[in-house]
Amino acid sequence: MLRLLLALLVFCTIPAANGQNAGIFISAEDAAAIRGAQGQFTLLDHSVTLAAETMAAAFAHPIEVPPPGEAGGYAHERHKQNYREMRLAGLLYSITEEVRYAAFVRDMLEAYAVLYPTLDAHPLAHHQRPGKIFHQTLNEEVWLVHTAIAYDCVYDWLSEEERARFETNIFRPMAEWFLVRNEAEFNRIHNHGTWAVAAVGMIGYVMGDLSLAEKALYGSKLDKNGGFLRQLDLLFSPDGYYMEGPYYIRYALMPFFYFAEAVQRMQPEIGIYEYRDEILRKAYYAAVQTSFPNGIFPPINDASLTMDVAAPEVVLSNALTYDRYGADKALLGVAGVQERVSLNRGGLMLARDYEDLDSKPTIDWPSVEFRDGHDGTRGGLGILRMGEGQDQSMLLMKYGVHGGGHGHFDKLHFIFFDQGRQVIRDYGFGRWINIEPKFGGRYLPENDSYAMQTVAHNTVVVDETTQNAWDEGEAETTAGQRHFFDAQSARVKVMSARADTYYEGVGMQRTMFLIQDASLEYPVVVDLFRLRSDAPHVYDYPIHYRGQIINTNLDLETSKTALAPLGDNFGYEHIWNTAQAATDSTVRFTWLDGNRYYSLIAAGWPGAEVLLGRTGANDPDFNLRSDPLLLLRHRGSDHLFASVIMPHGYFNEAQERSNQARPSVREVHVVGHSEEGSVVEVSGYEGPLWRIFVTNKPTADTVSVNFGGKQYEWSGAYHVEYLDRQN
Amino acid sequence: MLRLLLALLVFCTIPAANGQNAGIFISAEDAAAIRGAQGQFTLLDHSVTLAAETMAAAFAHPIEVPPPGEAGGYAHERHKQNYREMRLAGLLYSITEEVRYAAFVRDMLEAYAVLYPTLDAHPLAHHQRPGKIFHQTLNEEVWLVHTAIAYDCVYDWLSEEERARFETNIFRPMAEWFLVRNEAEFNRIHNHGTWAVAAVGMIGYVMGDLSLAEKALYGSKLDKNGGFLRQLDLLFSPDGYYMEGPYYIRYALMPFFYFAEAVQRMQPEIGIYEYRDEILRKAYYAAVQTSFPNGIFPPINDASLTMDVAAPEVVLSNALTYDRYGADKALLGVAGVQERVSLNRGGLMLARDYEDLDSKPTIDWPSVEFRDGHDGTRGGLGILRMGEGQDQSMLLMKYGVHGGGHGHFDKLHFIFFDQGRQVIRDYGFGRWINIEPKFGGRYLPENDSYAMQTVAHNTVVVDETTQNAWDEGEAETTAGQRHFFDAQSARVKVMSARADTYYEGVGMQRTMFLIQDASLEYPVVVDLFRLRSDAPHVYDYPIHYRGQIINTNLDLETSKTALAPLGDNFGYEHIWNTAQAATDSTVRFTWLDGNRYYSLIAAGWPGAEVLLGRTGANDPDFNLRSDPLLLLRHRGSDHLFASVIMPHGYFNEAQERSNQARPSVREVHVVGHSEEGSVVEVSGYEGPLWRIFVTNKPTADTVSVNFGGKQYEWSGAYHVEYLDRQN
Repeated sequence: MLRLLLALLVFCTIPAANGQNAGIFISAEDAAAIRGAQGQFTLLDHSVTLAAETMAAAFAHPIEVPPPGEAGGYAHERHKQNYREMRLAGLLYSITEEVRYAAFVRDMLEAYAVLYPTLDAHPLAHHQRPGKIFHQTLNEEVWLVHTAIAYDCVYDWLSEEERARFETNIFRPMAEWFLVRNEAEFNRIHNHGTWAVAAVGMIGYVMGDLSLAEKALYGSKLDKNGGFLRQLDLLFSPDGYYMEGPYYIRYALMPFFYFAEAVQRMQPEIGIYEYRDEILRKAYYAAVQTSFPNGIFPPINDASLTMDVAAPEVVLSNALTYDRYGADKALLGVAGVQERVSLNRGGLMLARDYEDLDSKPTIDWPSVEFRDGHDGTRGGLGILRMGEGQDQSMLLMKYGVHGGGHGHFDKLHFIFFDQGRQVIRDYGFGRWINIEPKFGGRYLPENDSYAMQTVAHNTVVVDETTQNAWDEGEAETTAGQRHFFDAQSARVKVMSARADTYYEGVGMQRTMFLIQDASLEYPVVVDLFRLRSDAPHVYDYPIHYRGQIINTNLDLETSKTALAPLGDNFGYEHIWNTAQAATDSTVRFTWLDGNRYYSLIAAGWPGAEVLLGRTGANDPDFNLRSDPLLLLRHRGSDHLFASVIMPHGYFNEAQERSNQARPSVREVHVVGHSEEGSVVEVSGYEGPLWRIFVTNKPTADTVSVNFGGKQYEWSGAYHVEYLDRQN
Repeated sequence: MLRLLLALLVFCTIPAANGQNAGIFISAEDAAAIRGAQGQFTLLDHSVTLAAETMAAAFAHPIEVPPPGEAGGYAHERHKQNYREMRLAGLLYSITEEVRYAAFVRDMLEAYAVLYPTLDAHPLAHHQRPGKIFHQTLNEEVWLVHTAIAYDCVYDWLSEEERARFETNIFRPMAEWFLVRNEAEFNRIHNHGTWAVAAVGMIGYVMGDLSLAEKALYGSKLDKNGGFLRQLDLLFSPDGYYMEGPYYIRYALMPFFYFAEAVQRMQPEIGIYEYRDEILRKAYYAAVQTSFPNGIFPPINDASLTMDVAAPEVVLSNALTYDRYGADKALLGVAGVQERVSLNRGGLMLARDYEDLDSKPTIDWPSVEFRDGHDGTRGGLGILRMGEGQDQSMLLMKYGVHGGGHGHFDKLHFIFFDQGRQVIRDYGFGRWINIEPKFGGRYLPENDSYAMQTVAHNTVVVDETTQNAWDEGEAETTAGQRHFFDAQSARVKVMSARADTYYEGVGMQRTMFLIQDASLEYPVVVDLFRLRSDAPHVYDYPIHYRGQIINTNLDLETSKTALAPLGDNFGYEHIWNTAQAATDSTVRFTWLDGNRYYSLIAAGWPGAEVLLGRTGANDPDFNLRSDPLLLLRHRGSDHLFASVIMPHGYFNEAQERSNQARPSVREVHVVGHSEEGSVVEVSGYEGPLWRIFVTNKPTADTVSVNFGGKQYEWSGAYHVEYLDRQN
């Protein structure tokens, strides 16, 4: 409290209070440096040109500030475009000193100063907290974050009367709306809360009203139960992993970094960038290090399939991270993919250093495990990578927390990325984002009924129900558990995790390998998913692939003249059952995706069932994509699903070339599994390839097991024994 | 006959007869010129490098000439690679004079000289004419075409004994196999016949055996009922259009041009390139002018979805056309897309002229109509184009002959290409080409049962049956009829055709417009499909689109919990019926494909039925792709389907941007239609846009009709009246 009072005393005299622009994002010196650098650095020049082009397009039409409209509709999009244009105009005014840019911001604010006082809560909120200009407060908070920067940039240029009018008619009542009317949301530990505090804090700094900034930092009651610092404490794991997942941290990076930068510039004594052992640095790296080799964020939890590191939020954070945490060449690689930089000091530094490079840098993120939970004890996210550049293979497993309202019920789910695409894929969200005729571009009912459900993921479903019985509250109380993670070896990388609290009485452990073998063209996935229970259950092991079925050793009973859904609840009702098969031996199933073949080779067992499906059932408005999946079904209490997923061969339709359309792995055999360990053998057509040992008990000294009368011993968490001569 | 005798006299002394290489494809002078041009022309250097790289890879392994194997299997692919390598080695020997290339050809021929005499008819022919090395003669003929060039290139370098051994053990018995054992095929007027005559004629020239070449030119009995000249007479329309369609002419270009070039070099007095008013020039241009703006050939008839102008056959023909018919800048554009040239005189010329260009040339083919049938009286193929480069819109309608065994029952079918893709698409062939586990890579049963059927195309199906009752013989006896084609105007391009002999007692006329309108972002399709009959029928109007359904004004009754096929024959058995609707008014149906929205706005009528479907029923081996379609169903005798198909708006998921997800065209209204003419009105949300008049009777003077008590008059084949103020 003393510190707070001291801060208040110091900052009664921040510049804005005296009719001087605060410089929350770009100072006069920064702007002058960028101005002086024109024509020297490609990335910077390109970025300034892009901004100028947007403004040239804006100048070509009269300013338009329409009455509020529905989500995704014309007025909604117009107001979004307005704040983008105001921010760019403000920055360009700072950089170029051309008055027309400042006048643009003023004229638009004048229009809002007329409109805003006439508005009350938006009538079309649809169960969301209403804003006034927008149907939900969230959009309005985003509006204010951008507009605060614009207002800051032109602050000195405006007359005192203009400033008074804007603050009275727009900014103060809007901040009040967020802070008082939506106090719960303001204090919420969630990305919506971050937008709220960033908006209020930033406009507070610009208006010279430090009390607003203090509430943004410490919560509306200044008790630190809400506010920015509390968000930094709780929303990230100690490794910087954000509990909602990559798509939402991508979104949240913007308020986190905009506000952090404002705090650093206005209240450097807080040391926001050092806060919690540099949590913002970790947050940024954790975000970009989850990305696929093509820069797209893995679509775990509610997420689009195409959001990537070129997103504006990442452009912003990349510059600020580079500026505040030191010049890392990897960030130059990101800037290269983005092809532009943020218009501030960090952007200038990136563009300058990028220009100095001899060759275009590549992004090569390491294999990495992120602990989840604010204290790092709630499971994690594992990422294994092999190969380089666009041709890298990546295997991701999710074993952390649920992740809030956007979390999916998908513990021990995995994604396999190969050949520049999700090969074993996550469906992403059930949403046609911003497509107005599709439910206003909002989340669709099928997001709940399919995309969130366990069966929509590549993890075992027990008794055709969803984890935690689809109860978000219950899912939030628990988490996966890390078992081991080892990415040291070039040939074998592995991660293992448990989830014992997702189905009552069922223990689950998944161990996933990425293995490089001299006899194989590409790294392959080896997956050992073990289930333990005292009671019998139905275990469904789904593989969500893409592309065309090429071949299988199964005697498929295809649904030729009638299709029915696979079930009637928990997402099964959305899957047409296209075929089934029964087998007692290894399942081999090959499909074509792009220019490669992919095969699942899975251990069989007496009475194994295989189901093929395709999404689209119970979908009255055709909201779902039509995607295929395969499902292995086991009935019993203890079981080990053991499979190999391998890319192989080449197909080019235009060149009419095909080779190795059949997999070289032939058999996967479960030697045995117990509470101690699991032993699995993998064979090719010319004999055994590998014997794989996994330690199942928590500690991993020497493990000794007896399966089928034979003794097996190994030490450590796992062991891969190469049985063929080539290796 | 006299001319033939004279030719025989003259060519008893062709070079090869005296142990000198014939130069059927590249002469010593050509080779020296290419050698001298090294390092000067990018395209040529690149092409030589590609050939040298292939040979470097070949040199890295021992020569392998395995016993024959199954189609698509290892041995099959090895023998294909062998002839490619021999031809390249021969050309590189000519160009570089490096002996290792000549030795490669010799060593491989030695291996074939051992293998070939041990072989008889291939046991795995599967209803095809067997070769000895390959399962079908066709592959073996292709082998000989390539190998003849290789043999020619190294002819002088080989000893007389080697030549005698190769000719005795391989070439003569192989030519005999094609000419005598497969005489009917040799004389067949079909691309298989062309490969046969090219193979026999080319090896005849190289061996100095003119009698083989004469049979290749004039038929096995020298009676001109078969042979190359007869093929040139009958396989192309006077406009050069090849009756099998673009995919197969692409394939057939190779034997046509290889053999033509050999004839020109060995028997220039025949004037093969002048033959039939330069039919080879027309054939080449007709082939490439059908291609989509991205260079892919439209997949009408049996065809892949991705074959394009970069195919080796087009690279070859482009060079020979450029050499023999004059330097056309459009062909430089094609060479630019191909990024390489053929290793001969024409390729050198292309590479040299390409190097001289100031900027990379674009391919901009004109709107064009090709007459079909060898005498040009059997309908045609119409192509309308608007816009430029990759962003061009293209509308293709097929109204010519059936096209032989690879023909589809698809008269009056259309394809709409926009945004760099087939938006209203042709399914192509039912074949996973060269993918061995998929039925040996051959045509699948579903090619017959689905891909060839009328309902698999965008043309009206009568009574749920296929045109000509799926009788190829009957389909071959008839053809579509051209009505009018006008692509002069920049704003309105149109084509109209009839098909009156495809369903008994049903007359069909389709008129398709591509219209550019100041009020619209992109050119739109207007389609008037008129049906006439004295008896009632069921008329199905299918639209094969791609992508996700976004919106419709229909009250869709979706098949939520059970799917059944749309019918039980003629391809309907392969379509799951996913939804249906009934309406009396205009149908609006919007989907998303790539970054654009597309809408069908179709005139309604009392009792209109709409069916939605997706391929995949009755497909036990998952051979079909899962693709959606929409079908308007009319029950009655006379009917005019009138629709607008329009691209609109923009969607970018990664940027989360969407605009104009709803079409601006609102209504299509049929004012009336009769034997005289049709009148249709199209309206937007702000009022009428166009009134469209089409003349239905064959001659088109002034047309006067009375519909609903109102008189309409126009002159000419069609008229588009703009009703809104913007135009």
